[in-house]
Parts: sequence; structure tokens; C-alpha cells
Amino acid sequence: MIRPVEWRNGAVVLLDQRLLPVQEVYRVYRDHREVARAIKDMVVRGAPAIGVTAAMGIALGMMTARPRELDRSFERICKRFAATRPTAVNLFWAIERMQRSFAAARGRSLEVVREILLQEALAIHEEDIANNRALGAYGAPLLPKRGTVLTHCNAGALATAGYGTALGVIRAARESGKLVTVLADETRPFLQGARLTAWELKKDKIPVTVITDNMAGHLFKSGNIDAVVVGADRIAANGDAANKIGTYTVAVLAARHGVPFYVAAPVSTIDPDSKSGDDIPIEERPAREVTHLAGEQITPRGVRVANPAFDVTPHDLIAAIITDRGVARAPYTKSLAKLLKATPRRSSTIAKRTSAKKATRR
Amino acid sequence: MIRPVEWRNGAVVLLDQRLLPVQEVYRVYRDHREVARAIKDMVVRGAPAIGVTAAMGIALGMMTARPRELDRSFERICKRFAATRPTAVNLFWAIERMQRSFAAARGRSLEVVREILLQEALAIHEEDIANNRALGAYGAPLLPKRGTVLTHCNAGALATAGYGTALGVIRAARESGKLVTVLADETRPFLQGARLTAWELKKDKIPVTVITDNMAGHLFKSGNIDAVVVGADRIAANGDAANKIGTYTVAVLAARHGVPFYVAAPVSTIDPDSKSGDDIPIEERPAREVTHLAGEQITPRGVRVANPAFDVTPHDLIAAIITDRGVARAPYTKSLAKLLKATPRRSSTIAKRTSAKKATRR
Repeated sequence: MIRPVEWRNGAVVLLDQRLLPVQEVYRVYRDHREVARAIKDMVVRGAPAIGVTAAMGIALGMMTARPRELDRSFERICKRFAATRPTAVNLFWAIERMQRSFAAARGRSLEVVREILLQEALAIHEEDIANNRALGAYGAPLLPKRGTVLTHCNAGALATAGYGTALGVIRAARESGKLVTVLADETRPFLQGARLTAWELKKDKIPVTVITDNMAGHLFKSGNIDAVVVGADRIAANGDAANKIGTYTVAVLAARHGVPFYVAAPVSTIDPDSKSGDDIPIEERPAREVTHLAGEQITPRGVRVANPAFDVTPHDLIAAIITDRGVARAPYTKSLAKLLKATPRRSSTIAKRTSAKKATRR
Repeated sequence: MIRPVEWRNGAVVLLDQRLLPVQEVYRVYRDHREVARAIKDMVVRGAPAIGVTAAMGIALGMMTARPRELDRSFERICKRFAATRPTAVNLFWAIERMQRSFAAARGRSLEVVREILLQEALAIHEEDIANNRALGAYGAPLLPKRGTVLTHCNAGALATAGYGTALGVIRAARESGKLVTVLADETRPFLQGARLTAWELKKDKIPVTVITDNMAGHLFKSGNIDAVVVGADRIAANGDAANKIGTYTVAVLAARHGVPFYVAAPVSTIDPDSKSGDDIPIEERPAREVTHLAGEQITPRGVRVANPAFDVTPHDLIAAIITDRGVARAPYTKSLAKLLKATPRRSSTIAKRTSAKKATRR
């Protein structure tokens, strides 16, 4: 199984996604500041994976925090991670979970505080995989028995702790015997589709064809797309979904051609504080991602470029939002609120493992 | 003025568009087979420019044709050019014009036949520039007094003998005092927008911002696009227009956001033999254009890709078709037929120059 982020021997280990598919390189981080830099530089990307990595990064940072400055160190470390990427809400959700753990550990010995934070980060990691499997099981019945599913960017194992959200739905559909094949938008400028989605689907022997982003319209028109499944970086209370730039265009095309457009994301992606998509901040990334490709300049020197990293798909273009707690349909304000209130799916094995470890180490 | 194709000292000279914007290299061709190869390899591209280059290539080929095999040589040369790119109808239109000139020259001396073919090719070249200026003058009033115009691919000076079609409309609007700025889709996989449109607009000091193809939807949604102007490679009798892959998607987005979508092309782009877009052949280009960028592989080895070079925008998404003989509006079957019957705009200076030269050389 593909593991883009792991905790190993007191360090955070990240698969450097900038080098895929040509090189498979795992980087070992022992300094939390470098983990934050890795999130910013997209060594690791994808909303759930960013959340998991930040949690591990915070636990890592606290390993070297001085006993007398514990509160201040924790605050500073959390702030550093919060400043890495503004759109993915899972990042802030993970930081909040770490903050709650830290608050609960108050007054315990330094050793215990560190262990509690590490165990919380590991729990977020394991829950994410379990949640994606649950999400896949909920989503698989929505896909056709056979046909082509278009996806944009990478909402796969590489964007999560493992298994994936949008690609998790596709994996679950395949596991249930459905003969779905995948059409992957290459997803400029970072090429997550061409590089990452193609890489992980090929590894899993799921048939995939890569197209440039501007080819989707032609393939919708010629009847070659039966469903769309994408991930999300933040879902507003009304169902508006922020996802990788270009997702909105795919949704408009799907609507024109009567093809169902699904968003797949864990409940941690829902942000009740964003009433609609207008409240979601859209990250503007460096121009160089657009002007250069593989180190070579493609635009004339000095030409202006724009590089918004995300766009918002309005809820009326979304056929359903597939989560780890079930499938939400319009009206989303109601259905999403209900899912948020539902009992979180905490795998009992995780709970057991965590308390067992805690007991051993103490 | 930018001249992507010229006849100079008995040779065809092409600006190698594959190397722009980093290098400005002009290649000299003395063998017509290499001219045909240059069209296929996209040293020169853009429907009108392909037509002009093919005409010059045919004239070049006949310079070395053996007197006793003149008919067979001519037929073989025309066939070679007809096999270069299937979608752009201007190619076949230019070949037909050369065929008519050849037929008219029947019985004349070899020297005269060669001169007539060369003069016809030069006339096609000069008419194209004049036609684009006329087209620009017809189109400029359609653009807003100030605002942002989105264009896809390159329908500029580089895609024609000079001045451009879609960019000709923008140039004419600027010349008439309108403060329009340009948003250029980068246009994967060949990056005509990022490389060529940005290069020629920068040269002309027309403000341009480059975006990746998948960003247009976001910018339409945020109200940043006031009009769209694109070129065409073939326009069917009913107004359906084939143009660079991704154009259809832009048209769908424009329709959703109530932004006028204009097609700018000379009358030679209208193909009365194609009743609708379904009759237009769509060229599938080599996979390597998608899998490699600047020589580097971006997809995993062995992954399938699609590479249709064009798509068809249905006539109902087109607000107007701007030609060198006027502006056509729906119903297009009627308005386009009328334009085709109108007297062609033949610049008298061209006619004079041609006959003067003929007289001198004879």
C-alpha cells in the first residue's frame, strides 16, 4: 500500500511527490520546521495528507521543545504549520485536534505530554486510512457497473494517509467487481494527475488514460465519460466545495452533458465556519509553477501569470458528497450538518493500540 | 511586423515556433519535402499559416520538378502537403488554389508555369495579411471599450501570414483606442498560448496574463472575463467551428457566465462541404506531446494518453463569426453562405505587383 507520510523511528518520513513518477524518494525529517517547509513546497500535498503531516510535525516539534517553554513552543509550532497552506481545512482541523490533546495533557510530565501528542498524530494517520475505506464503501455503489470515471488532480492514496478519497471510491468500486476505468486530467500547473494519479493507479493495475485538462470537454461531448469523482480541500456548510484549480470547469462540463459529478472527502473537510464558497480563502501560489516546466522557462521572460491553486464548485453542480459517514445530497446545509453531528467512526483497533502503547511506555 | 513564413531568395523561410519564446530561429527550406515535414512537426502552425506555407512549398517543389514529369510531380507534391495536417481546411483551400493556377498555366513554358505558381503563393501570402486587417476592422467594434478578452491557443500573427485573426481583432481594437487586455490560456500540450500568444503580444506591448487552461473557469466565475475571441481551423456550413483542443470548454464556460464567445477566421476557413462539426476530421497527434515536456517525461512510463488536437464548438455557443468579409451571426447556414458568395477582397496592389513582376521576369 502506498504510504505518502509515516512516522518512523522518531522522524516524519515523506514520499517526495515532486519527484514522482520518475523517482520514488522518501525523505526523513527530524526538524519540524522542515516538515512545515515540505508542506509549503508540496513535497506532500492533498488536504488529508497535509492534516496528517502537520499533526506528526507538531508531535515532532515537541520532542525537542524545552520543558520550561512548553506552552509557548507548542503555540509557535502550531502557528508555523497553520501558515503553510491556507485552503485545506483538514490542516486546521488536525492542528485543533493536537491542541485539544495538548490541553488535556496539561500538568502531566514532559515525557507523557510528548507521548500523548505522538499518539494523537498516529491516531489521525490511522483513522484517515480507515475513514477512506469507509468513504470508498459508501461511494462505490454510486459508480456505474462499467464505464469511464473522470478525476481531476490527485485525491488518491498520495493525497491522504492511504487508499484515497476520490480514488478510494474508484478502488472500492473495482474491489466490488465494477469494471470502471479512469480518465485523469493532467492538472496543470503541478501535474498531479499526469504524475501522481497515473502513478498510483498504474501501481494498482487500474486502467488509466491521461489527458490534458483542456481535453475533457471534447471527451464529455463524445460521450466518453460516465461519472466524475474528485476530492475537496474544504467544503462549506452549504455544500460549495473548494478543490484543485480546474475542478469547477469539470463540474460545468459535467452539468452540460448530464454526467453525475461527485465530491469525495472525509467529514474533516467540511468547514461549518465557511457558510458558502465565498468564505473560503483561495491560495495564490508562486508564478514559477506556471512559467517553468521541468526547470525550463515556457513563457516569455517578464510575462504576467496568475496561479490560483483552487476554485470553488457551487453546490448545485454537485450530485452528491461522499464522506466517511455516509453520502450527503442536496439540500447540503441540512445533510452536511447531520453528518457532522453523527458519531465519528473511530476504529476500535486504533483505540486499543493507542492505549496499549501508552500503557507500555509509561 | 512578425512574419512566421516568407519567400526569400528562392527558399521558404519559417520562424521555428517550437523554439519560441526562448529562441527566435528562422529556418531556410530549399526542399519542399522538408517544408511538408515542418508543417507536420509544427515548426509552423495555425490554419492560415499552414495554407500559406503549403502554397509556397508547392511552388518550391515545382522549381526542381523535371519538365517531362510536370503533371505527375505536381500531383505528388500536392498530395504530400495534403497529408500533413487533416483538420485545418485552409490547407486544402490553398492547395486547390495552386491546382487552379497550375491548370490555368497548362501549355505555357516551364519557366512561366513556375513563375505563375510562385506568384499565386505570394498572392495567398499577401492576401492573408490584408484579409486579417479587414477581419480585425470588422471585429474591433464587437469588443468592449475596456476589459479583459480571453483567447485560447494562438490565432495571432504567428498563426497567419501576419497580424492574426483573433489577435488581429484585439490588435484592431487597441489601434482604435480600446483598452482591452488579454488573458491567454497556456494551451496544453503544445503551449501555444504560454509560448506564442504571450510572445507576440508582449512584442506589441499589449498587456497579457498567462493562465493554465484549467484556470479560465475560476476567472469567468469571478467576473474577470468580458469577451472571448478564438480562431478556427475549419468552420462547417452550419457554423460549428473546429479549433484547438480546449476551445469547446471555453465556449461552455462563456455560455454559463453570459460572456460573448467570438470566432475569428478568414472565409477560407469555412468549409461548405462539412455540413456540421460531425463531418470535420479531428487529428490525433503523437502521445509524446502529452507525456513529455521540455524533453522530460511527466507521466509514468507506459501510461496511456489521448491527444486529440482539436475539438468542435457547436454553433449555438458562438455569438458571432468574424471574417474578412464581415460578421456572420445565427442562423449561420444562411449568413456563412452569403459571405462565401460575396466578392473576395483582392487587394489591387497585390494584383498590380504580381503582373508587374511577371512582366519583368518573362
